[in-house]
Amino acid sequence: MSQKITGIFNILATPFTPDYQLDVTSLRQLVNFQLNMGAYGLTILGVLGEAAKMSVDERKLVVETVIETVAGRVPVVVGTSHEDTATCVALSKAAFAAGAAGVMIAPPRMEKPTDERVIGLYSEIATHIDQPIVVQDFPPVNGVIMSADMLATLAEKIPNARYLKLEDPPLMEKIGAIRARTDKFEIFGGLGGMFLLEELGRGASGTMTGFAFTEILVAIYQAFNEGRRDEAERIFDHYLPLIRYENQPVINLTIRKELLYRRGAMAHPTLRQPFVPIDAGTHEEIGWILKRVGIADPTQKVQL
Amino acid sequence: MSQKITGIFNILATPFTPDYQLDVTSLRQLVNFQLNMGAYGLTILGVLGEAAKMSVDERKLVVETVIETVAGRVPVVVGTSHEDTATCVALSKAAFAAGAAGVMIAPPRMEKPTDERVIGLYSEIATHIDQPIVVQDFPPVNGVIMSADMLATLAEKIPNARYLKLEDPPLMEKIGAIRARTDKFEIFGGLGGMFLLEELGRGASGTMTGFAFTEILVAIYQAFNEGRRDEAERIFDHYLPLIRYENQPVINLTIRKELLYRRGAMAHPTLRQPFVPIDAGTHEEIGWILKRVGIADPTQKVQL
Amino acid sequence: MSQKITGIFNILATPFTPDYQLDVTSLRQLVNFQLNMGAYGLTILGVLGEAAKMSVDERKLVVETVIETVAGRVPVVVGTSHEDTATCVALSKAAFAAGAAGVMIAPPRMEKPTDERVIGLYSEIATHIDQPIVVQDFPPVNGVIMSADMLATLAEKIPNARYLKLEDPPLMEKIGAIRARTDKFEIFGGLGGMFLLEELGRGASGTMTGFAFTEILVAIYQAFNEGRRDEAERIFDHYLPLIRYENQPVINLTIRKELLYRRGAMAHPTLRQPFVPIDAGTHEEIGWILKRVGIADPTQKVQL
Amino acid sequence: MSQKITGIFNILATPFTPDYQLDVTSLRQLVNFQLNMGAYGLTILGVLGEAAKMSVDERKLVVETVIETVAGRVPVVVGTSHEDTATCVALSKAAFAAGAAGVMIAPPRMEKPTDERVIGLYSEIATHIDQPIVVQDFPPVNGVIMSADMLATLAEKIPNARYLKLEDPPLMEKIGAIRARTDKFEIFGGLGGMFLLEELGRGASGTMTGFAFTEILVAIYQAFNEGRRDEAERIFDHYLPLIRYENQPVINLTIRKELLYRRGAMAHPTLRQPFVPIDAGTHEEIGWILKRVGIADPTQKVQL
Repeated sequence: MSQKITGIFNILATPFTPDYQLDVTSLRQLVNFQLNMGAYGLTILGVLGEAAKMSVDERKLVVETVIETVAGRVPVVVGTSHEDTATCVALSKAAFAAGAAGVMIAPPRMEKPTDERVIGLYSEIATHIDQPIVVQDFPPVNGVIMSADMLATLAEKIPNARYLKLEDPPLMEKIGAIRARTDKFEIFGGLGGMFLLEELGRGASGTMTGFAFTEILVAIYQAFNEGRRDEAERIFDHYLPLIRYENQPVINLTIRKELLYRRGAMAHPTLRQPFVPIDAGTHEEIGWILKRVGIADPTQKVQL
Repeated sequence: MSQKITGIFNILATPFTPDYQLDVTSLRQLVNFQLNMGAYGLTILGVLGEAAKMSVDERKLVVETVIETVAGRVPVVVGTSHEDTATCVALSKAAFAAGAAGVMIAPPRMEKPTDERVIGLYSEIATHIDQPIVVQDFPPVNGVIMSADMLATLAEKIPNARYLKLEDPPLMEKIGAIRARTDKFEIFGGLGGMFLLEELGRGASGTMTGFAFTEILVAIYQAFNEGRRDEAERIFDHYLPLIRYENQPVINLTIRKELLYRRGAMAHPTLRQPFVPIDAGTHEEIGWILKRVGIADPTQKVQL
Repeated sequence: MSQKITGIFNILATPFTPDYQLDVTSLRQLVNFQLNMGAYGLTILGVLGEAAKMSVDERKLVVETVIETVAGRVPVVVGTSHEDTATCVALSKAAFAAGAAGVMIAPPRMEKPTDERVIGLYSEIATHIDQPIVVQDFPPVNGVIMSADMLATLAEKIPNARYLKLEDPPLMEKIGAIRARTDKFEIFGGLGGMFLLEELGRGASGTMTGFAFTEILVAIYQAFNEGRRDEAERIFDHYLPLIRYENQPVINLTIRKELLYRRGAMAHPTLRQPFVPIDAGTHEEIGWILKRVGIADPTQKVQL
Repeated sequence: MSQKITGIFNILATPFTPDYQLDVTSLRQLVNFQLNMGAYGLTILGVLGEAAKMSVDERKLVVETVIETVAGRVPVVVGTSHEDTATCVALSKAAFAAGAAGVMIAPPRMEKPTDERVIGLYSEIATHIDQPIVVQDFPPVNGVIMSADMLATLAEKIPNARYLKLEDPPLMEKIGAIRARTDKFEIFGGLGGMFLLEELGRGASGTMTGFAFTEILVAIYQAFNEGRRDEAERIFDHYLPLIRYENQPVINLTIRKELLYRRGAMAHPTLRQPFVPIDAGTHEEIGWILKRVGIADPTQKVQL
């Protein structure tokens, strides 16, 4: 299957039951929810999908459930990062065998992550898989700095590394620096959607983020792409208080799952241990913000 | 002089000439600008004031110039953090001698910053000065984690540590945790104003931040305090795209100085080396954002 | 099986073939080698066992192969740390089912690792397993600081947390601080054996380290325990140049595998990617050091 | 004055009185002590000289006192690193005016320390001073990674950057990598002397370290340089237990000052706050180690 990886991808949360089991029913429900909200694709098993807190069997089950539920409606990108290169390759092969459109790979935390060693790692992976790789730039998580020069070299050397997911601020400056060096990458922003409009303005192909109101990002993206910039700005700026609130460091995923739970997209807001819980004040603030931006009933698709 | 430290404090940028000299004329101009915009007080020589990149003589000149220009109109808090405790004490004494209302002190980066060692440091300082101390919580800069428990203990032990400046997200949760343990602190938020409204909702006394449009923060604060919450929300949410844009990691101060320069508040947007510059795209985006929030002429006080 | 966890434990390296496959034949050979050298026990699948770079199936195969080869001669401790608590519990249960004497568990890298959250994690694990847990203190790897106070509280709360593996310098001071608060732990040192004698002097029960000449550590330990302190000192000080050389940051495991390979303990010195290789100069220096300490033939047990 | 910077340099500790004042009498005494022990030169105001905990006036007093006491007998290198480039330049000019043979400069902790930005910083400094610069590589302190490639480029561009002080393990591999790219640097090792012999073997010109028994390092260096390698090895290996003990992370300077105090080289072992103290066990262990290596009276020059 060759599906275009572009536009607004939702980084899918992974639902758990109150006793921390994988909640497969909710997972199917969440997939359909995101597609109903207009997601151009799904990215699964990223950091925000709590992949590191799942067993290999559970990860496999998530891949199969999601791809089966999606049933070819949109492309699915699977996070397959692993400290063991062979396991990363095995997970990637399994993902493509199951029907993935691409795999997203960040280097593991490592000693002395020189450019040479990081490019070597992707080259090694690319000797085993020739399908699309989304290179994930995520220094807050792995401590690996990927410079624009290094990324341009990587694009030259590895023909299937054609997608780039950025998470290293300042993001717009980084998009600009990469664009000035190579046009080989489709670039995706992140940061919870905080700079979606400016990222698109710099030439991003879309974003991959877990923000709980996918339809808002989709509306912004479509208005921008169709030249209705005023409308894109109006929507983005109107919902920014919510985007910003969800995007708090440390507790962003806890808030996001609470929002998805309030939206009826999954049966429980549970995270796996260890995670940082939110207090009563944050629960109240979530209600306050939703009211401020005019979302009376979060279970409904926001009308824009 | 005993002036109340509360409300919207501007963390003053330090103007430099294009050849990196301290620009005393612009400094006076900037002080008057911020007071005209309604600042309740000024905090000088913080991280965003580039204090670490100035000599001791220059720091002294900044203190004297600012306090002389303010001429008692508002309280001035002086950052006096230093790796050497004795120098911190000497800078603090000099600040109070010059007329400061308080000093703001963060622990230096240190090996094994246990609660005991951090409290010991403030205790040592408090044996030398009995005027108001603003305890600065700033782990991204110094690597020192200050728990709510530790801060409550510190408030019990040190009678003049009555102010707290937070910068460690999630901020609202931290305000809540401290409020549940002690009422001895006046708490100030930060993070560039990104959560001003929610911080006030949790019981913050104000904020100390360098956001370049002080009058916007003042209007939000006053509306909130006078019970006009709808208006506070309306103003905050309207200007959030700008607050957010300025608050980008790594380049926030570069953007802020550019904004202050465009506002005519200082003669040059120069930062001292080493700093991270902004590209042409960021210069354009600044104009785009100002237009989006309806600021046609940044040299004028924003009418709210 | 209940075997005493005490004395000199070898943290077992994991042998790979030149094409990066698990080398089961060498693994058996290495186990027998270490027991012939006098190891009191083996600790497998730690950081130095490259556990994070292995699949779950490979980890299982290592556990089974080692325990089968040991055949009850000494106790085996299995590293079962995992970002997912449930996987950690599952790996631990599997280890005990296979015949492990204990499991070694470090907390995963996490946001805001407060004492409460870390103790909560061990408590959760201890509701599922009641066999011996070796608490691993390893801040350079996971960023989790375990204070002496916290460790003493943990020992009070969790009856099967009776072993402690330290790796956080200064180690002797930490042993002293823990000993002053609780006598519930058997404490094991580390740091490649660099301070074995001083750790024993502070009351350590032994060490767990991967130093490639187990017989040297055993001789020091036995001499010390039998009151022959002069001999313990003589042996330790004589071989310290080698202990120190192996214990270089970043390349310690690469050197160690080279040494085990030269000793004939495994067929190849291969590490899995990503790792930091050693240069020709380091290969020469290894020979120089062996000569300096009088080890003419590393395949033979060093006579002390 | 043009004195050759080569051989065993002592990184001078800074003596304080029990009430934390600069102890100028002890400083003179310590200088004479180190020269009597055979130091080829002194490096002052480094991290281990607690320079960051001193005021600018105190730093000036230290420079003047040391250079006056040395009276031209050996070259003096002055640490002049500062977050403010202009202050760094001013401190450097003052150092040369006072008679320094060189200045040692590490980049400050900074955002995004790219090679370009780091080289730019040294270039800027070199437009103001044309005397010898010792480039200090110290990532554990400033987070700045200096690759061998970058250092070779720096040597090409900056004619007075001809000395390099390394502190980034694995050190011998780094010496090898730099030597393979450029012969423009005189390279100095560090790490408390832990690898002095191997560093010399790789082509280091000497070391700069604060180890409290300078005469031991001098004897090793001279034996090595005169081709008496067996003797160099014998001395190094014999005193390694002491070198290793002093070089413990976190408390190395506390131990070192205690040793200098026991040697009668300064009147008090005081460090300035904040520092990590040593416990009674460490005091005992210091005595134990001295006895083990045969130093009965530390006030006397060790006979080798």
